[in-house]
Amino acid sequence: MAVKIGKRTIELQTKPKIISYGSIVGKLEHEGPIGHEFDKHITDSFFGEKSFEKAESKLQKTAVEIALEKVNLKPCDIDKIFAGDLLNQCIGSSFGLKSFGIPFIGLYGACSTMALSAGLASIFIDSGATEKAIAVTSSHFCSAERQYRFPLNYGSQRTPNAQRTVTGSGAIILSNEGEGPYIDKVTFGEITDYDITDVNNMGAAMAPSACDTLKHFFEDTNTTPEDYDVIYTGDLGSVGTLLLYELMSREGYDLKCRHADCGLLIFDNEGQDVHAGGSGCGCSASVLASFIMHRFESGDFKNILFMSTGALLSPTSSFQGESIPGVSHLINIKI
Amino acid sequence: MAVKIGKRTIELQTKPKIISYGSIVGKLEHEGPIGHEFDKHITDSFFGEKSFEKAESKLQKTAVEIALEKVNLKPCDIDKIFAGDLLNQCIGSSFGLKSFGIPFIGLYGACSTMALSAGLASIFIDSGATEKAIAVTSSHFCSAERQYRFPLNYGSQRTPNAQRTVTGSGAIILSNEGEGPYIDKVTFGEITDYDITDVNNMGAAMAPSACDTLKHFFEDTNTTPEDYDVIYTGDLGSVGTLLLYELMSREGYDLKCRHADCGLLIFDNEGQDVHAGGSGCGCSASVLASFIMHRFESGDFKNILFMSTGALLSPTSSFQGESIPGVSHLINIKI
Repeated sequence: MAVKIGKRTIELQTKPKIISYGSIVGKLEHEGPIGHEFDKHITDSFFGEKSFEKAESKLQKTAVEIALEKVNLKPCDIDKIFAGDLLNQCIGSSFGLKSFGIPFIGLYGACSTMALSAGLASIFIDSGATEKAIAVTSSHFCSAERQYRFPLNYGSQRTPNAQRTVTGSGAIILSNEGEGPYIDKVTFGEITDYDITDVNNMGAAMAPSACDTLKHFFEDTNTTPEDYDVIYTGDLGSVGTLLLYELMSREGYDLKCRHADCGLLIFDNEGQDVHAGGSGCGCSASVLASFIMHRFESGDFKNILFMSTGALLSPTSSFQGESIPGVSHLINIKI
Repeated sequence: MAVKIGKRTIELQTKPKIISYGSIVGKLEHEGPIGHEFDKHITDSFFGEKSFEKAESKLQKTAVEIALEKVNLKPCDIDKIFAGDLLNQCIGSSFGLKSFGIPFIGLYGACSTMALSAGLASIFIDSGATEKAIAVTSSHFCSAERQYRFPLNYGSQRTPNAQRTVTGSGAIILSNEGEGPYIDKVTFGEITDYDITDVNNMGAAMAPSACDTLKHFFEDTNTTPEDYDVIYTGDLGSVGTLLLYELMSREGYDLKCRHADCGLLIFDNEGQDVHAGGSGCGCSASVLASFIMHRFESGDFKNILFMSTGALLSPTSSFQGESIPGVSHLINIKI
């Protein structure tokens, strides 16, 4: 039975546990500062498939398989799968997961999908409706560039504040029993819109929503950044991170000492020439399902916030002169 | 507290009530056999906006406003909004709903979205996490044709088994208290794939998933079609409906006497020249939030099944030679 605390936050009574996780990334992510943390990596952007989109589906399928194998579970042991991605009509998820035969809850939260899927899965478990659920998402640099910006073959120059979509996928298995860190609270965000229209500046588009969700969480729980080991954001990158600090400071919170951004962890921004950092659904997903989970296992983490940040744009809306609204969802993980 | 019954079905203990609903449709839908049932209709495909996509967003916004007005609620009275649509990156929902300031759960289930959103909302309410939630979706003939098939200006000929995307939106408000029909059970479907590749034959792509979800529901609840006043499918149209009858008959169920398809209710297929019937997220959504709800109010219905059926294709997957997987989600509504 979940309990609403404050305006937005939901406290889970059964403490759904993350009993397993799996991650797979691309070559550049593997060569990055936390490359050794991921379960698998690919060296060919096509992953043996005929298109980038099919490769992305295979990434998602592989992340789920890794997570299942680690705890010796089969797809039929899982009640529900919560998934989404950045591709039009979320084909990364539907084609990647169709062979599992698990009831499928399709989501669209752009890069907020990992916290959205984990949050929904944990509420399903808390409600009693579900015993075991998987939350998974993915992104692929090549399929995202082709869809949102330009086909890679154009060789177009990226702006300094542009982020690089992570090629990768992360999956976690949540359960009403077993061992592992648990999801204690969830805060779902509202859509915020600061009229950012620059499609190369996702960080600026997402920072206001990150601030809004975080502020609500702190108010609802009567806590401050100092109460958490680390506060992870999904993929604000270097530009969005500075904006978040500024916005939070106006609200009276000093985030700097406790904050890390998955998009800034996954690449060496200068050495790997990725400009403002990593982005994409697969960014926070693969970091959660590796680096973050490992630190719970080693005892370094006891209580963190994980907030995925999404920019709800499409090329169509941008071509029509629309702004880029943002949405951020947050989960509080403890052990 | 929700209870899992059988393999797939979830029974809700708190019986979340549908306390309000709102619908708005296009001109052709208003001229159809149930046109008088809808709350509002538009006469201009642009709905006073500059693009079909913006018109679709406005449809969704309007459906929510109608539902709120009927019970004198404001957006701030609503805990969560569950929404999705057919447009790339679900911009119909994100741009349509951003002004409400309600925590936003973005979904992608193609035409299965209405049952998906209502099912998720009811589980949130049952879990205690939410008091009042809105489930909403939309579609627009012109934005869907442009995105999935051809721009209308091409004047391309539609095949006889093609369906016409409904221009419309339907929203329902679910609550843990109040009066109205309630959601008693939910069954989320898995993705099924019968290797249908004809993008003009959505009915055939969705019928196997409809059969799968329905069969699971009957087995889980130990009921038969005769136990329900009507079993509504979303938008199988004339081709998909016949296929569903055949598939269900192989499983030992005679559906004919109890079945109706929202896609066949909304248009006069021959008189309105819509070929195999209506389709799109807005089809089952607008029929649920008008025709079906009215029959609960009049006392004609006591116990129905409402199953939205989705085809998980995108132009990209079809161009790459992929099949069209289907997914169907079901809610059991009683009074």
